[in-house]
Amino acid sequence: MKKSLVILALLAASAATAQAQSNVAIYGTIDSGINKATGTTLAVGKRDNNKLGFKGVEDLGGGLSALFQLEIRFEPDTGAVENTTTTTYRPLFQGQSRVGLQGGFGTLRFGRGLSAYQETSITFEPWSGMPTPAGFMTDLQVAGYTSDPLSAAGNSRNRFSNAVFYNSPLFFGVGQINVTYGTKEANGNPAIIGRGTALAPQFPANSPPAEAPYSVSGTILSGPLGLMAAYEKNGVETDIWSVGASYKPINPLKLMVTYQRQNQDYTLPFNPATRAWVIGANYLVGPGKVLAGFGRKSPDGVTMTRQYSLGYEYNLSVRTYLYSDISTRHADNHVNYYSLGIHHNF
Amino acid sequence: MKKSLVILALLAASAATAQAQSNVAIYGTIDSGINKATGTTLAVGKRDNNKLGFKGVEDLGGGLSALFQLEIRFEPDTGAVENTTTTTYRPLFQGQSRVGLQGGFGTLRFGRGLSAYQETSITFEPWSGMPTPAGFMTDLQVAGYTSDPLSAAGNSRNRFSNAVFYNSPLFFGVGQINVTYGTKEANGNPAIIGRGTALAPQFPANSPPAEAPYSVSGTILSGPLGLMAAYEKNGVETDIWSVGASYKPINPLKLMVTYQRQNQDYTLPFNPATRAWVIGANYLVGPGKVLAGFGRKSPDGVTMTRQYSLGYEYNLSVRTYLYSDISTRHADNHVNYYSLGIHHNF
Amino acid sequence: MKKSLVILALLAASAATAQAQSNVAIYGTIDSGINKATGTTLAVGKRDNNKLGFKGVEDLGGGLSALFQLEIRFEPDTGAVENTTTTTYRPLFQGQSRVGLQGGFGTLRFGRGLSAYQETSITFEPWSGMPTPAGFMTDLQVAGYTSDPLSAAGNSRNRFSNAVFYNSPLFFGVGQINVTYGTKEANGNPAIIGRGTALAPQFPANSPPAEAPYSVSGTILSGPLGLMAAYEKNGVETDIWSVGASYKPINPLKLMVTYQRQNQDYTLPFNPATRAWVIGANYLVGPGKVLAGFGRKSPDGVTMTRQYSLGYEYNLSVRTYLYSDISTRHADNHVNYYSLGIHHNF
Repeated sequence: MKKSLVILALLAASAATAQAQSNVAIYGTIDSGINKATGTTLAVGKRDNNKLGFKGVEDLGGGLSALFQLEIRFEPDTGAVENTTTTTYRPLFQGQSRVGLQGGFGTLRFGRGLSAYQETSITFEPWSGMPTPAGFMTDLQVAGYTSDPLSAAGNSRNRFSNAVFYNSPLFFGVGQINVTYGTKEANGNPAIIGRGTALAPQFPANSPPAEAPYSVSGTILSGPLGLMAAYEKNGVETDIWSVGASYKPINPLKLMVTYQRQNQDYTLPFNPATRAWVIGANYLVGPGKVLAGFGRKSPDGVTMTRQYSLGYEYNLSVRTYLYSDISTRHADNHVNYYSLGIHHNF
Repeated sequence: MKKSLVILALLAASAATAQAQSNVAIYGTIDSGINKATGTTLAVGKRDNNKLGFKGVEDLGGGLSALFQLEIRFEPDTGAVENTTTTTYRPLFQGQSRVGLQGGFGTLRFGRGLSAYQETSITFEPWSGMPTPAGFMTDLQVAGYTSDPLSAAGNSRNRFSNAVFYNSPLFFGVGQINVTYGTKEANGNPAIIGRGTALAPQFPANSPPAEAPYSVSGTILSGPLGLMAAYEKNGVETDIWSVGASYKPINPLKLMVTYQRQNQDYTLPFNPATRAWVIGANYLVGPGKVLAGFGRKSPDGVTMTRQYSLGYEYNLSVRTYLYSDISTRHADNHVNYYSLGIHHNF
Repeated sequence: MKKSLVILALLAASAATAQAQSNVAIYGTIDSGINKATGTTLAVGKRDNNKLGFKGVEDLGGGLSALFQLEIRFEPDTGAVENTTTTTYRPLFQGQSRVGLQGGFGTLRFGRGLSAYQETSITFEPWSGMPTPAGFMTDLQVAGYTSDPLSAAGNSRNRFSNAVFYNSPLFFGVGQINVTYGTKEANGNPAIIGRGTALAPQFPANSPPAEAPYSVSGTILSGPLGLMAAYEKNGVETDIWSVGASYKPINPLKLMVTYQRQNQDYTLPFNPATRAWVIGANYLVGPGKVLAGFGRKSPDGVTMTRQYSLGYEYNLSVRTYLYSDISTRHADNHVNYYSLGIHHNF
């Protein structure tokens, strides 16, 4: 809306041709295959998040850059935006929608994206945060914690909307601090009963957060050793902290472990605490990669969850690989999961 | 999610600039004009499907390629995703969402796309499968058959979600076999009464298919002659078969004919069979193309439908043409249709 | 659907690689920051419309071009399509969806876009039509007028769907005429009571327009002087006219003024007339730009609205600037507004 529109017709033509495409990089992942879980039909589905994104970096001089990123998330088997139906709704740019500046001070961005806690946790998870049931991210890696419980029905569990994102520069060449701060804006949540009643829920529909949610994490990456600590409090005052470490005894082998503790005392009268830990390994061998992991989640007074997973990736190129995962999960039920598919980055 | 995210800020910048855009081709069609049908107001609308797509092919060496395609479908007159409102829902990538491999064995893809039956039928239809009322595809060419009756309200009639798509290599340089196989996953359909009652519908809301749907087709293209045969069974056990032929007596003239028979016996207690045939011609003359067709559909014991259509395309370039169509359709009502518009590929 | 699909597999590969990307330019704006208004919480939000667009121009020879433009609009703070929830619905290409021809006769396009009235008004508004509360466009600049009251709930206030758009060539090198004409197609509006009752609303749900809506504007741009006059009538027979002028006494300074009068007599039994005027200035100083404006809206017998605004933009590059706005608005309530953010074009 910044350019003069008095001479509409002429501008329409010249603007289109003068616009260079080099300002935008298109990228994405499409990953699909067949899978089977105990008690469900053979399905076509995904292992990783499927994305189509648009991003760019503009050099402003003096070490300063402007950067933006917009990322569509979709289901490869139906072509739909992730988890969007006529009754649930995820944003078009579910993956992220951010713009900001980067310089000697670090990176400062506004919009929507993974919280510092969630983004940091991913690197200490043997499936790199992929949402496959064989991975540990969604449930065990973050102890079933939800970053945005006050968003619309069906929205995601690990992102902040209406937020400010800060990543520090490297300290001493090895450390980094990340902070995400959300506002108290309401975002169309359904009612959350919590410590209230159905008639007087603790968080009625479209409630603002009790306090502004925030998320902090710190990481150290020094030679073969990685360390992390993270803390987050969401809009219904549930908080979680986590510590983790990774180690490479030899270069092709990465070992990793995390521990996390979630406290839902603000909304849950009984059994508010959940503890979880995950150990895992990635091993590069020839054109392939072996993934292995074990995790356990112990909610107070509720059935413990345990999961064992094994995966293999066979690289057809640097952008494309075939994969197979197998996992078994014990909770109230016992679920085995098998998958076979193709993962393609573009 | 595959790359390390420990050093978040630095990666954000370098990843954006390092990403080459050449992995993705953007393509599409936008087609709009004015049209008028008996009994409706003058409208702005489309002749062809409007699409904005993203696709790519990666050479993996040894004759093997990875390929993907994501295709948005939209209404040019409102800017909306095809047929999507607050109560009906079509996926963002309604056109297709597929990834897979191509090699000496043929092409194998996972995701969502036109079924083998529907995709093969298009080439034997004088309007090349375009959804204009002057064309024959939607109703006559496939006898009003629906490939995916168990999808959400308003979804498309000619695609499989949650499917595996196989296209064979050419046999003897002239023949090809195509197979689409869908899973038994439920996809949010409204209730289908069928042989049941309103209280006990044959397919309740969000039913899985009775059996996994599938679709097969074979084509031969030898010199001036094209032949096809196709069969498909959908999730409510309706099946359809079709045979067709095309012939070019002289190079600018393509004649085509198809016959199809649909059987809805599994869900319709009365008049389950529908038969249809379509004949047509495309004639290239100077910078233009003449399209002509006649089709007839005969459902058991229900009014027969007949349609006569004539169209003309005037090429302004290889990517852009103006068009006009005129058609008349006789069923319970008699509807004339006229249109005038512009069709642009990019 | 125009290319032969008989040989499916082979075409899929070759078409993808042969497709040149140069036909499409990707462009957009992402703008986000923090803001605070009297009575609401600190928020992350936008100043300008956020867009991701795809456009192209094809030279057809002889001075004729084909052109298209598709423009997604989104909220940067949530990543959602503008104003889209599970109960309200805006089209994916909310910004515009148009295709047409340009030549010596001017520009003729079909589809959806800003009406001639709205597009012309923008250039005489000190915030260039940006939707920030500090700007005057949405309410004062167009006297609160709605171009498309008969569209679905939550849809935009300043666009025509199902329309034909004509922009004349320049007359005498200085003048241009623009016309937008909409059809009488129904577009899913909720009921509008108007002069009816709740049981018998004047416009029931999904009503067609009473008469086809249209919009005309004329502009003259001669040296330092700009003049405009515009008129529009929407689908519920509300009409509005506006006159405006801009003047540059020195090159870095642009002064502007508009007056508009809206008449809702067809649907409002009482107080149908609204009058508004806006004066403003833009002043370029060093790497920055100062924006200032005052506007007043006087509905018949209803509280007058007055708004004073001041803004500053600091250019980091030709594509990126930081901004801050401050405004105060007096109507039934008194609302102050402050914002600080970053605006990035790509």
